[in-house]
Amino acid sequence: TRTGLPEAVLCGAKSAGQLADIVAAARARGARLLLTRLEPASFAALDETARAGLAYDPLSRTAVLGGEVALAEAHVAVVAAGTSDLPVAREAVQTLAFNGQDARLIADVGVAGLWRLMERIEEIRACRVVIAVAGMEGALFSVLGGLVSAPVIAVPTSVGYGVAEGGRAALTSALASCAPGVVAVNIDNGYGAACAALKMLGVAAPGDRGA
Amino acid sequence: TRTGLPEAVLCGAKSAGQLADIVAAARARGARLLLTRLEPASFAALDETARAGLAYDPLSRTAVLGGEVALAEAHVAVVAAGTSDLPVAREAVQTLAFNGQDARLIADVGVAGLWRLMERIEEIRACRVVIAVAGMEGALFSVLGGLVSAPVIAVPTSVGYGVAEGGRAALTSALASCAPGVVAVNIDNGYGAACAALKMLGVAAPGDRGA
Amino acid sequence: TRTGLPEAVLCGAKSAGQLADIVAAARARGARLLLTRLEPASFAALDETARAGLAYDPLSRTAVLGGEVALAEAHVAVVAAGTSDLPVAREAVQTLAFNGQDARLIADVGVAGLWRLMERIEEIRACRVVIAVAGMEGALFSVLGGLVSAPVIAVPTSVGYGVAEGGRAALTSALASCAPGVVAVNIDNGYGAACAALKMLGVAAPGDRGA
Amino acid sequence: TRTGLPEAVLCGAKSAGQLADIVAAARARGARLLLTRLEPASFAALDETARAGLAYDPLSRTAVLGGEVALAEAHVAVVAAGTSDLPVAREAVQTLAFNGQDARLIADVGVAGLWRLMERIEEIRACRVVIAVAGMEGALFSVLGGLVSAPVIAVPTSVGYGVAEGGRAALTSALASCAPGVVAVNIDNGYGAACAALKMLGVAAPGDRGA
Amino acid sequence: TRTGLPEAVLCGAKSAGQLADIVAAARARGARLLLTRLEPASFAALDETARAGLAYDPLSRTAVLGGEVALAEAHVAVVAAGTSDLPVAREAVQTLAFNGQDARLIADVGVAGLWRLMERIEEIRACRVVIAVAGMEGALFSVLGGLVSAPVIAVPTSVGYGVAEGGRAALTSALASCAPGVVAVNIDNGYGAACAALKMLGVAAPGDRGA
Amino acid sequence: TRTGLPEAVLCGAKSAGQLADIVAAARARGARLLLTRLEPASFAALDETARAGLAYDPLSRTAVLGGEVALAEAHVAVVAAGTSDLPVAREAVQTLAFNGQDARLIADVGVAGLWRLMERIEEIRACRVVIAVAGMEGALFSVLGGLVSAPVIAVPTSVGYGVAEGGRAALTSALASCAPGVVAVNIDNGYGAACAALKMLGVAAPGDRGA
Amino acid sequence: TRTGLPEAVLCGAKSAGQLADIVAAARARGARLLLTRLEPASFAALDETARAGLAYDPLSRTAVLGGEVALAEAHVAVVAAGTSDLPVAREAVQTLAFNGQDARLIADVGVAGLWRLMERIEEIRACRVVIAVAGMEGALFSVLGGLVSAPVIAVPTSVGYGVAEGGRAALTSALASCAPGVVAVNIDNGYGAACAALKMLGVAAPGDRGA
Amino acid sequence: TRTGLPEAVLCGAKSAGQLADIVAAARARGARLLLTRLEPASFAALDETARAGLAYDPLSRTAVLGGEVALAEAHVAVVAAGTSDLPVAREAVQTLAFNGQDARLIADVGVAGLWRLMERIEEIRACRVVIAVAGMEGALFSVLGGLVSAPVIAVPTSVGYGVAEGGRAALTSALASCAPGVVAVNIDNGYGAACAALKMLGVAAPGDRGA
Ligand SMILES: Nc1ncnc2c1ncn2[C@@H]1O[C@H](COP(=O)(O)O)[C@@H](O)[C@H]1O
Ligand SMILES: Nc1ncnc2c1ncn2[C@@H]1O[C@H](COP(=O)(O)O)[C@@H](O)[C@H]1O
Ligand SMILES: Nc1ncnc2c1ncn2[C@@H]1O[C@H](COP(=O)(O)O)[C@@H](O)[C@H]1O
Ligand SMILES: Nc1ncnc2c1ncn2[C@@H]1O[C@H](COP(=O)(O)O)[C@@H](O)[C@H]1O
Ligand SMILES: [Mg+2]
Ligand SMILES: [Mg+2]
Ligand SMILES: [Mg+2]
Ligand SMILES: [Mg+2]
Ligand SMILES: [Mg+2]
Ligand SMILES: [Mg+2]
Ligand SMILES: [Mg+2]
Ligand SMILES: [Mg+2]
Repeated sequence: TRTGLPEAVLCGAKSAGQLADIVAAARARGARLLLTRLEPASFAALDETARAGLAYDPLSRTAVLGGEVALAEAHVAVVAAGTSDLPVAREAVQTLAFNGQDARLIADVGVAGLWRLMERIEEIRACRVVIAVAGMEGALFSVLGGLVSAPVIAVPTSVGYGVAEGGRAALTSALASCAPGVVAVNIDNGYGAACAALKMLGVAAPGDRGA
Repeated sequence: TRTGLPEAVLCGAKSAGQLADIVAAARARGARLLLTRLEPASFAALDETARAGLAYDPLSRTAVLGGEVALAEAHVAVVAAGTSDLPVAREAVQTLAFNGQDARLIADVGVAGLWRLMERIEEIRACRVVIAVAGMEGALFSVLGGLVSAPVIAVPTSVGYGVAEGGRAALTSALASCAPGVVAVNIDNGYGAACAALKMLGVAAPGDRGA
Repeated sequence: TRTGLPEAVLCGAKSAGQLADIVAAARARGARLLLTRLEPASFAALDETARAGLAYDPLSRTAVLGGEVALAEAHVAVVAAGTSDLPVAREAVQTLAFNGQDARLIADVGVAGLWRLMERIEEIRACRVVIAVAGMEGALFSVLGGLVSAPVIAVPTSVGYGVAEGGRAALTSALASCAPGVVAVNIDNGYGAACAALKMLGVAAPGDRGA
Repeated sequence: TRTGLPEAVLCGAKSAGQLADIVAAARARGARLLLTRLEPASFAALDETARAGLAYDPLSRTAVLGGEVALAEAHVAVVAAGTSDLPVAREAVQTLAFNGQDARLIADVGVAGLWRLMERIEEIRACRVVIAVAGMEGALFSVLGGLVSAPVIAVPTSVGYGVAEGGRAALTSALASCAPGVVAVNIDNGYGAACAALKMLGVAAPGDRGA
Repeated sequence: TRTGLPEAVLCGAKSAGQLADIVAAARARGARLLLTRLEPASFAALDETARAGLAYDPLSRTAVLGGEVALAEAHVAVVAAGTSDLPVAREAVQTLAFNGQDARLIADVGVAGLWRLMERIEEIRACRVVIAVAGMEGALFSVLGGLVSAPVIAVPTSVGYGVAEGGRAALTSALASCAPGVVAVNIDNGYGAACAALKMLGVAAPGDRGA
Repeated sequence: TRTGLPEAVLCGAKSAGQLADIVAAARARGARLLLTRLEPASFAALDETARAGLAYDPLSRTAVLGGEVALAEAHVAVVAAGTSDLPVAREAVQTLAFNGQDARLIADVGVAGLWRLMERIEEIRACRVVIAVAGMEGALFSVLGGLVSAPVIAVPTSVGYGVAEGGRAALTSALASCAPGVVAVNIDNGYGAACAALKMLGVAAPGDRGA
Repeated sequence: TRTGLPEAVLCGAKSAGQLADIVAAARARGARLLLTRLEPASFAALDETARAGLAYDPLSRTAVLGGEVALAEAHVAVVAAGTSDLPVAREAVQTLAFNGQDARLIADVGVAGLWRLMERIEEIRACRVVIAVAGMEGALFSVLGGLVSAPVIAVPTSVGYGVAEGGRAALTSALASCAPGVVAVNIDNGYGAACAALKMLGVAAPGDRGA
Repeated sequence: TRTGLPEAVLCGAKSAGQLADIVAAARARGARLLLTRLEPASFAALDETARAGLAYDPLSRTAVLGGEVALAEAHVAVVAAGTSDLPVAREAVQTLAFNGQDARLIADVGVAGLWRLMERIEEIRACRVVIAVAGMEGALFSVLGGLVSAPVIAVPTSVGYGVAEGGRAALTSALASCAPGVVAVNIDNGYGAACAALKMLGVAAPGDRGA
């Protein structure tokens, strides 16, 4: 693409046939490819040729064609509030790895148990970008935003029920945060948060990004 | 009333004439009275007889007829996130005072500056009921809910703009809180939170409450 | 936890493998455990070792590891409007029992048949905390709030269709109640209401709760 | 009109000039006229000729041209929850009176003080149609719907704040009512409720209504 | 019940066991019973004893225990906009029949083909109450409200997609109708509309209704 | 502009100074200019030079600089439901006139009085494009859509209260219309509807439109 | 119909039996018929007689009875942002073809890759009506609206997740577009957009359309 | 603060007295201070001492105490769609300047006139962070996101009417953007966008930021 980001395939609404075609085409031209929102059932429905060579991660529902690349040391912290937020957090981690960035995944540090977050705060503060992943009421975004000087990218998740169902409550908390400098992406959009982090890491050297 | 709570007058939608009548009637029968949501302009519009004897507090827009009562030591902490939340916090304090309960007001401890909250947390933990007052994203409710063993009554305020306008974001955070045992009242309802606190303080001695 | 409440496991978004691990770990350290939102299918999917020792209640979808404890006499009334509200009401009862509190369950007293509620009102008034569980329009919350002096914790349920679908109508009724002192928790959150009730019962003796 | 109901003029969005024209035209052809939503300022802005002959009621913001008619005995009860609901309740009463129906106005019987409603319930049960007017959470609609056999027309009012602001909470309660046979009109629509009541009273004799 | 309406059983959220118990109990005491929202699968899941004696109508998902009663001549018109609205329209018809009222069902007269409605308008105008059933944008409610002098009870249906999904668009049209005297019930609530119609038909003789 | 439409100035959020500059600049280069949403107060606040040469229409809040052009015979019908919808209807008429198109304004034909619409339906059917303007429940859009073969552009207005407040109810009716071929523009957007009509009239001769 | 548009059958909520009846009836009278929203499973459930003679297109879920007609040269461009929008785009194409209009389908030109749209813009500008189909944030509508002089009919699709789920985000973008002359139809309503386009193409010769 | 960002004063809900106190205190300790949302009327209401030394900018409603600092060359582009978006755009520029960052303001490049944006795209691409400011449908965010490799911070504005009123439409477009790497802040939050940009510019040198 013209923004320096490798385009990914959002598989959700595509048929097995369409996906097989896309994978075959990428293979033919020797391209690496990231597939997101690839449900286990959809992965299983691919023909064997398509499946071969795809490294599939069922937790994050991502797959990579074309193998791994060497990873830079961890500049990005991916901080998840609860176990239920892990699929989205891991989508971010996979997207970063696909683009050569190792990420530090710090899980189960929701604010209802503030001391657990405090035990790991220095580890987080050592990173250049922080991706925060939380559902329910999303209080984690504001607490982190007030504690670290790096940019905090909030990824609200659809984890929750009642007023929190679907992720709107967490999204609203991110946008209304009283901690300045928190930015937000769409609900469950771990991929988008990683793309934004990649753009931010590129900030130091804008000259070398083509279009 | 039949619940042991002295009934208050919600002045918002009442005319100066109606309010003057209510005050005069209470006076005639020697009753104490709490007036809420009494805007400065509405107070000024009352005739002098009505105004005399009313102790008016412009910050919380409350007035008391019938004088003060002796206050019990502070069992309730009223914790406010920011300066803009003070009118609502003070409505709760005034309602408690009207009912003989001194409250400890702890202000400007929003989570964007977590250390300020931590400096006063023991003071809060010493109380039997905590009323938390916050607008914007309302992250304070979850942080407090995870730190104190007393019941936390969340009062979302209408302080905020954009997605936080009107108080829905803070309300949703209170209800979706990942900290168990947080309960909520309506937006800006400092009066109702104080009533709930009074009911909770009465829990130890249910026998002596009439109807 | 630091609030004196035993932490519960919200099973909804966890896999059979994750749940089995959690149960095994608790068992190994001899801990009691409360599991909520454990669907019959998820319970059935657990291996036999995990299932053994779990007391499972399909109506409330809760399970208890580690056996029962002696119950204190009933200080809490759990009042349900209709039969469809029973699963949520029972989640509250089970959480209270897990924490040693017997609760008085009073069912099918919705306000469309007001006389049924009136027949049992003295029984309710004898309790120190009232948990009210209702879907549809949630009129029960205000009626109870006006009749009892104990705190009323409203649990709106997702029972209903059309404008009541998902529980927002009942939730709004709880928050907008004209009866002072009603507090609310999230839709279908019987667990949270019970936690709040436990905190309220602890009010009389704050000194002895650790963190 | 072709439905047997005298058409009314909704004044809200009309200029003083337009209103004066409408009144003059009705006068010229000797017609009676009901004006609704006529704010005091708009009434005052009318020229003296237009004002003369108009019987203006500032509480309900209605005006009648052409004088009163003889009233039938009260077949309709208009039941209002609080003082703030009186303007809407009175719009219904005025519309009924304009059409020759006396109504019984029963005020300040909100469910937070259920005994006040119970003291007047027989009076209400004696009527052929009940118009119930309430804001906040609108619990009155369900309580009445379960107690009377006449049709209950719910008029939600915009009285309230926070989640109740604008009247949606009360409207939803009316529509989601667990009491069968409650019907609803738009928020603050006392006029429409009265029109519906008039149509219902006509039910016994459908033959003689023209179009 | 105390309103003269036979109580019906809303089956949606009840288990086969609970339903079988209810039917058996009614049978034991020789009572007639109306069951609504009884899905074909739920009906099939009942034991043979429960199914015997139930007259089941799959289109409206209603069942009647205790046989038919003699029907009064048609005083109620049930007017449906499209074929997809028929299940809800028929729920109203069945409820009326259970209570001894024959209804005139007039289908497929949506306003996109206004001439079809006009061909049957006199038939509708001959009735004492009109129940109008429509989804999508619900324009039928206003057109009927302007053409007939009988009360019009609008039943919005959840038929529609996009902005009409779930029935809110049709409901809003009913409430905002520019035709005075239209009243509304909840989305898909054919049962409630029939109950309201029954109450209206009783208007002529209020004295003989017990409680 | 590159679409063949003369760009208009939306004055709402511009200061008197900014508006005066824009008018002066247009004048200097001899351009014609259409100003919309120019409140009487804003027009009055312009300096005399700016006001001179502007033909101001207070009803529609539009102003034209540069004089009138010859008008083509009426190809467009602008149909308004009520008097309160006239400002928006007239904004459409003024925009069409500015672009050389005479429009036929047909007012006060809301569906609550269907016969009034029917009396003028042939006049409407003679036009090549129909702009329908309505607030409240917007039933007019569907009725017109089912009766005319020309494209119907629905302009919902913010006229209404309660559920109709702000125009969402009418907008939803336009989009959910069961009459195929109805298209919608934003609430109160008479200008946009006229622009769309101009584009449609240009359809017959696409070749001669530049960019 | 009276608008010159052949009526289509919306199959979504109809049973296999009802659909078979409709097809048989059309066949008996030799009519052509367009069926929309006919899911593959519903098509398969039809009896063989009904299926024979139906030309079924699974991508758009449409079927045609009665064979093809000769197509006029392409006057309509159907422009789709992404692959996931193709089913809706194709519903429009099929509806146009059923009515004798060939359409130019231009796919995968979403604005995130603006240069792809620019490569095909002249092809689009050559058409007399443009149907734009997009989900997510719907930015395509405004970009097209600013570049072409033909009318642009926006069809928002339900493609998206989080805040875009269900199509509201794209719909809002269409209605709020800063490009004058964009009109919108309901979410996923490819059929309706094609009907509107047909009406617009008829504009040049209004005389010959019957009713 | 502990994040390296100078804390600003949000003046909206503060009284003249409170603001004067804050300014005096900052002055006493020789601190620089940024005041946002300071309405002209509130500025005028300050006493002369408070006003002296404050550099007030009425367009953005910001004020600076303590004078200017030297500005680094422009690393941030602030891109505004229309004139009405300028106050918010300028709030971002002022916040950046207060922190020593010159910003390049590029105005009036909304997508309805795409060529205007294209004329300035290289200037934008030369920056390390892009702040995009737009109301209405916010299509600018996606177009920019697809054209530049720097991070794009979307600031939706409350500019718009009808469905765009209040800024939700633009916010939703930012979050649902099909261009990866776009992040969003709250509606009208120019201050927050600038804070996020400052954090991003600090990314290259995380070591030297204290807490
Ligand atoms: N600030 C307040 N917020 C909510 N409810 C209130 C408030 N002040 C008074 N009330 C309640 O409103 C009732 C007064 O209603 P009214 O009879 O209209 O004066 C009292 O009985 C209180 O329960
Ligand atoms: N039914 C429930 N509803 C709401 N919260 C619950 C429920 N059950 C457990 N929880 C809370 O959710 C937390 C468990 O989250 P997790 O760490 O994901 O298992 C517990 O600490 C409880 O505070
Ligand atoms: N207060 C009211 N609320 C709702 N509708 C009203 C009201 N007053 C009058 N109307 C209706 O609005 C119509 C008047 O509209 P207009 O022609 O604009 O005066 C009347 O025919 C009534 O049906
Ligand atoms: N895909 C579609 N989306 C919207 N409306 C449709 C669609 N297909 C058919 N229709 C309309 O729905 C009507 C058919 O409704 P019905 O009588 O229920 O089959 C037709 O007259 C069309 O106007
Ligand atoms: Mg957790
Ligand atoms: Mg603060
Ligand atoms: Mg019941
Ligand atoms: Mg009252
Ligand atoms: Mg139909
Ligand atoms: Mg009218
Ligand atoms: Mg694409
Ligand atoms: Mg512009």
